[in-house]
Amino acid sequence: MTAATLSARVFEGDPRAIARAISLIEDESPAGADLVRTIFSRTGRAYLIGVTGPPGAGKSTLVDRLTAELRAAGQTVGVVAVDPTSSFSGGAILGDRVRMQAHANDPGVFIRSMATRGHLGGLARATSEVALVFDAAGKDIVLIETVGVGQDEIDIVRTADVSIVTVVPGSGDEVQALKAGIMEIADIFVVNKADREGADRMAASIEAMLSLHAFTDGEWRPPIIKTEATTGKGVTELIAAIERFRAHTAATQGSRRRSRAEWRMRELLAERFLRHVETQVLPAGEFDRTLERIASREVDPYTAVDDIFSRALNR
Amino acid sequence: MTAATLSARVFEGDPRAIARAISLIEDESPAGADLVRTIFSRTGRAYLIGVTGPPGAGKSTLVDRLTAELRAAGQTVGVVAVDPTSSFSGGAILGDRVRMQAHANDPGVFIRSMATRGHLGGLARATSEVALVFDAAGKDIVLIETVGVGQDEIDIVRTADVSIVTVVPGSGDEVQALKAGIMEIADIFVVNKADREGADRMAASIEAMLSLHAFTDGEWRPPIIKTEATTGKGVTELIAAIERFRAHTAATQGSRRRSRAEWRMRELLAERFLRHVETQVLPAGEFDRTLERIASREVDPYTAVDDIFSRALNR
Repeated sequence: MTAATLSARVFEGDPRAIARAISLIEDESPAGADLVRTIFSRTGRAYLIGVTGPPGAGKSTLVDRLTAELRAAGQTVGVVAVDPTSSFSGGAILGDRVRMQAHANDPGVFIRSMATRGHLGGLARATSEVALVFDAAGKDIVLIETVGVGQDEIDIVRTADVSIVTVVPGSGDEVQALKAGIMEIADIFVVNKADREGADRMAASIEAMLSLHAFTDGEWRPPIIKTEATTGKGVTELIAAIERFRAHTAATQGSRRRSRAEWRMRELLAERFLRHVETQVLPAGEFDRTLERIASREVDPYTAVDDIFSRALNR
Repeated sequence: MTAATLSARVFEGDPRAIARAISLIEDESPAGADLVRTIFSRTGRAYLIGVTGPPGAGKSTLVDRLTAELRAAGQTVGVVAVDPTSSFSGGAILGDRVRMQAHANDPGVFIRSMATRGHLGGLARATSEVALVFDAAGKDIVLIETVGVGQDEIDIVRTADVSIVTVVPGSGDEVQALKAGIMEIADIFVVNKADREGADRMAASIEAMLSLHAFTDGEWRPPIIKTEATTGKGVTELIAAIERFRAHTAATQGSRRRSRAEWRMRELLAERFLRHVETQVLPAGEFDRTLERIASREVDPYTAVDDIFSRALNR
């Protein structure tokens, strides 16, 4: 199928075409890049909601509840769950099957899990491209869920229009929440499993942390929403908070999206250059020989890079 | 101070020179690169121990205990703690002060915290360069501690000679441990806070997971060590496990170090190319204008990258 044919079907919202498009992106094939080229002009309409937080915070359940509530309000939803695959667990596929069941008969929902990639920002880029596919397919909302609280997850969630950081009571002392380094990206905090002991203390400690920050006039102050995702309690309030944030940032959303474009450009340029070096600049085997020389301390990495770089530009 | 003078003092193990060298690396200044060039041939002797795991697993205490035990055995130690800095908490500096106290009067220990960087692998590279400084300064052991379980932390720990994954009982159900995606990088598992209820269950679930993997003859099977870092229980066993791993992998350590060199080369090449594009290829303001055109959907990122890339190579 050509990129034009496939993208035409994606525009119609055809689930099989969406699945095929996402697979091309996951494979990082040239066909995936062609597809992005073709659909890009028809994107930019969907609203991207990022959900992150430590493992065990109940993010999957929360995302399911958000999906159900958004569907009830007539919105169509694409979900991309970034689920690190372990060679032991084979995580992503299992996750997809479990998740699909709740919305299996609803054509207004499309759920896809993604596995981690071993290279420079690969997963974050793939995630943002899957969001483009959902966007082009006419989904009103794209939910991006990440597992974990590392830099990669932060990069992913930062590409969303709104970032929700989910925490749970009793998941370590309050200082741990600070240490996780995800606090500064939160547009909205969710204290999930709010029926547990310590929920108020957790909310109070986030509140105390926020009070250290001097919010300027008109600056968004992240609200703290208590939820019980398993029962659905608090999910309506969370959606209201998302809508308030969306209204509040309507004027500045452009600059957030420009940052997203900048990050994607840098990542693509870097990848393109590395491929060029390996396939066009260095004779077969030379990259490996250079690595051996570095490992044996014959040459340092900076000097080796200077040499390769000048050859890449002067041929 | 020139790179030569500074590196001469680093070779002598001068703490002020080490601190200065690390600052240059953190600043990502050209002087930092010069320093790495100068010291690189004198590195490769230190053994790098990576410690990771979810927030709240007691990694800092464990690293302190390991440091004390290694010192007692006559080894000199450099510690680099990768501590994401939040704009709210200003984490790294505080962490340093607290940590330094325990070993303040011991010239055989040097401890430094590092903050997260906002770009392509910057933190992981800086961490590995700080390890080079400790190595050149004659430290026998470099301990690399990371907070969190994301891709960035995995990248950092992967650059170590041995990777220790620390978990705690009752930190969520066992499946969470799998989801964290850090299991496959573990050379040694530590169940810390082993006096807590559920420690045996946690160890059993890791064991069960390992049993799913078909270890070949002679393949290292990650041991599970129970520790109580606050009392020091189990730390001797952990050091014994590290030594067993070191002996077991003596023959293959070279290939692990070559992977580390490969990753560093790619990262440096990418960064170098992006700087070239912005300072030499594109007229001032054009990068920003391109981002505007992407944001407004006039051009897609792949087409924009094709254009910039061909201009970078044909001038």
